[in-house]
Amino acid sequence: MSNKKSHPSALHEKAGIPRPEMISATAVENIQHFRKIQPSAAALVEGILAGNITALSRAITLVESTNGTHLAKATEVINACLPHASQSVRIGITGVPGVGKSTFIEAFGKFLTGLGKKVAVLAVDPSSTISHGSILGDKTRMEELVKDKNAYIRPSASGDTLGGVARKTRESITLCEACGFDTIIIETVGVGQSETAVHSMVDFFLLLKISGAGDELQGIKRGIMEMADAIVINKADGDNIKKAQFAKMEFNRALHLFPAKKSGWTPTTSTCSSVTHEGIPVVWETIEKFIELTKGNNYFFEKRKEQNQYWMLETINEQLKTNFYNNSEIQKSLDSTKKAVQNDEISPFAAAQFLLEKYFKKD
Amino acid sequence: MSNKKSHPSALHEKAGIPRPEMISATAVENIQHFRKIQPSAAALVEGILAGNITALSRAITLVESTNGTHLAKATEVINACLPHASQSVRIGITGVPGVGKSTFIEAFGKFLTGLGKKVAVLAVDPSSTISHGSILGDKTRMEELVKDKNAYIRPSASGDTLGGVARKTRESITLCEACGFDTIIIETVGVGQSETAVHSMVDFFLLLKISGAGDELQGIKRGIMEMADAIVINKADGDNIKKAQFAKMEFNRALHLFPAKKSGWTPTTSTCSSVTHEGIPVVWETIEKFIELTKGNNYFFEKRKEQNQYWMLETINEQLKTNFYNNSEIQKSLDSTKKAVQNDEISPFAAAQFLLEKYFKKD
Repeated sequence: MSNKKSHPSALHEKAGIPRPEMISATAVENIQHFRKIQPSAAALVEGILAGNITALSRAITLVESTNGTHLAKATEVINACLPHASQSVRIGITGVPGVGKSTFIEAFGKFLTGLGKKVAVLAVDPSSTISHGSILGDKTRMEELVKDKNAYIRPSASGDTLGGVARKTRESITLCEACGFDTIIIETVGVGQSETAVHSMVDFFLLLKISGAGDELQGIKRGIMEMADAIVINKADGDNIKKAQFAKMEFNRALHLFPAKKSGWTPTTSTCSSVTHEGIPVVWETIEKFIELTKGNNYFFEKRKEQNQYWMLETINEQLKTNFYNNSEIQKSLDSTKKAVQNDEISPFAAAQFLLEKYFKKD
Repeated sequence: MSNKKSHPSALHEKAGIPRPEMISATAVENIQHFRKIQPSAAALVEGILAGNITALSRAITLVESTNGTHLAKATEVINACLPHASQSVRIGITGVPGVGKSTFIEAFGKFLTGLGKKVAVLAVDPSSTISHGSILGDKTRMEELVKDKNAYIRPSASGDTLGGVARKTRESITLCEACGFDTIIIETVGVGQSETAVHSMVDFFLLLKISGAGDELQGIKRGIMEMADAIVINKADGDNIKKAQFAKMEFNRALHLFPAKKSGWTPTTSTCSSVTHEGIPVVWETIEKFIELTKGNNYFFEKRKEQNQYWMLETINEQLKTNFYNNSEIQKSLDSTKKAVQNDEISPFAAAQFLLEKYFKKD
């Protein structure tokens, strides 16, 4: 580069340090290509189907956009990817902060890529609206996996509502699958209803726990245990092994209190260590057995159809409510009507009727 | 009555058998009065507030009507009753067929009227649309209670949807309370989401069980145990006493697996017999303790306010959906869109958007 040019543009790239040999020239070209242009929907689809990670990331960014044009393009890309998607296993992982989700996913993900699998890790974390991506935001927590060329890690989308975050993640699954990822891990932190949302987009739901002092089962959120296909007690290493095994027994007993699952699957419990990697292969064996069983009895496919329909109906329902509560007439009357209902001045049903009449007249 | 009249009207009442002495002349007059006329809303309110059962029944019939004029009158009556309602304890009772709900309610209800309480028994049974009132339909199952002047038993309303049945029952509670009933029992049979609906209209939720062979907890529907404030094992008599006590222990252990309740109440377990009446007083003592605790920590009142708001929002939500799915444009496109979503031809979110655009354009 010549130093004679007196006013170099601030946008001009310096030559910088020499490129490390380990990065392929093709990869760099791809990245630079996609950085420079606003690729068309067709170009994105082509890139995704060819396994191009940059194209995948660009498409997910469109999915996460609030811009109408972007969203229209996102829909085009997704619909084109759909016929090439859904050839995967979708695994939901939940657990409260402190159970070691990141280290578990790191160890589990590395194990899977070691088997030749392509692993995408996504997240549903509505709280990331505030914290700007607390989950997976810090990719350094998965140092090994993030460097693995067969792994793709994407932090949680942000959004005003769980519904918004869930939609973005659900659509990202389609894109990852079309891009060739055969194992999709969806992490959630158990805020609000996020487990239910994740449960509604995965094939297999894993609850991660650690052994604690005393009653192992306290603090489990309502319904979580009933959703679990497996409970894995993490951090079963060193002094913890005995406690973890006791916790496993406790959970096993608790799991059997619940009625049989529609899938025909009996939930399992096991222990593992993300440090020693003991018990990690068992988790995958369990999932494989689950997939074999549920593909055999058709539950796997039926559930995916149901899940698709669920997301359609759920989106409609959310939009109908949003439209109602954003109506100016409703906004004027809602608070006073709520108060009247709370104070037993008007029956809840009469109040609902009163508001609905305003809404449907106005529209 | 003269026999000389040659063409007596079919509507003419015969004198019939002499009236039994035990029925008061006033009661008969009241019944005959209300039978003959279509009382005004004001007259119904006056009757209800005076404790007149015939007025109460007439008002509930209006609540259950599908006729617009009747419903408008019902709303008028309910809103006038509201300031005089809510001075009661509302108890939900659920249990699968065979646990002896009717005999339990009979024994429990008689015990309560024996304490000087006025007991109303209502039901939420959406299946009664088909069976025309399976629950409580056969009042002879509560032979004693039905004759008790301090008890009022009303079979489940029928309706197309759980929402409809729930609304009718919820509004009937208000009417019963305004009529002076201080203990409201809502029975449900555990069809679909009916427990959730009942849980959302009562202060105290009781799960009735019997001891069985083997695993006591199998067959309990998801989430029911978490809603229970007390589990009562019925039919603890004769050879069954030991088994019932074992079941009580099992349930007690299971209950402690769940996180602490917002009410501050620790759910209890006990055994009882609707035949020997052993354990029946304990049920009431438990409820009294619960009420004392939750009135003390304000949970009782807060929950009722929340419940009112819940029913308002729930009704709005239901109506928005009904309006959407009854829209002719939606009805034309819904099935094909659902199919396209199930077959992965279009993403669930794109499908929802497609339908929503049709709906809001049309409107």
